[in-house]
Amino acid sequence: MAKNYQLENIKIVEMLESDLELLLSWRSHPDAYIFFKSQKGPLRWSEHFNFWHNRKNRVDFIIFFKESKRWRKVGSINLSRLETELPEIGIIIGEMTLHGNGIGTKALSLGLEWLKDAGYKKALAVINTKNEASKKIFSKNGFEKKHKIDVWEEYTKNL
Amino acid sequence: MAKNYQLENIKIVEMLESDLELLLSWRSHPDAYIFFKSQKGPLRWSEHFNFWHNRKNRVDFIIFFKESKRWRKVGSINLSRLETELPEIGIIIGEMTLHGNGIGTKALSLGLEWLKDAGYKKALAVINTKNEASKKIFSKNGFEKKHKIDVWEEYTKNL
Repeated sequence: MAKNYQLENIKIVEMLESDLELLLSWRSHPDAYIFFKSQKGPLRWSEHFNFWHNRKNRVDFIIFFKESKRWRKVGSINLSRLETELPEIGIIIGEMTLHGNGIGTKALSLGLEWLKDAGYKKALAVINTKNEASKKIFSKNGFEKKHKIDVWEEYTKNL
Repeated sequence: MAKNYQLENIKIVEMLESDLELLLSWRSHPDAYIFFKSQKGPLRWSEHFNFWHNRKNRVDFIIFFKESKRWRKVGSINLSRLETELPEIGIIIGEMTLHGNGIGTKALSLGLEWLKDAGYKKALAVINTKNEASKKIFSKNGFEKKHKIDVWEEYTKNL
């Protein structure tokens, strides 16, 4: 049986193709894409769909949050560059009004647990210098800033 | 067997509770809620969930769009005030980059077909005076402006 990645009221579950519309919508909110590297407006379906079917060395999870005895989908976490010794982790909390509630911090720790279980020793995050919320989530999980290139800060953590 | 409401590459299907996250996300985009009557920021889950379980005399549909042989969820249409002789119809195209493609116009005609089949003779839409896209969609479907109260324009159509 596959291990469950759950911490209290948060769990992460591998994303399905049927989650693509939800992820598209989360990634099309201006408060989200303002911090993306390669997206300057709402995401186009064709781009999103092609990305999904052509992705390699990557796993995407849906973040579930339990409130009032009910689980719901609130965001996504992705692990990429899995062919290297320094996989990259990214996170989006799509349900905007949940920001600042500690959900991202818990979900990130579950993503790191998955990487550790898969045998990785280190993880990378590349964060927009203006994305204070994201920097906070990664710092709380033990990430440290290593470099800054243009507006991109590279953080790493030993697992 | 229930009738299918489909027009070429558009169909509407009754919404399920499992669509609530997607609808929440669509309704939380600033380009959408700027035109809503009773929502001034991203929608809160508790409000959305309570609304769903307490709604009466109302039916909600998901709009599906077919492209490259694949159906996907792109918006929602709702019919309310179904206890009256003048039901109200509302629409949201959640996939932002599809705006202006005629999808809303077709989906609206399917909603009107549903109302007609249910025996209604007339339909109402209340549209923000600044929402030019929505006014276009309703006009194309034969709606005519009847009143304006504050920033709200009332349109009706005989079915």
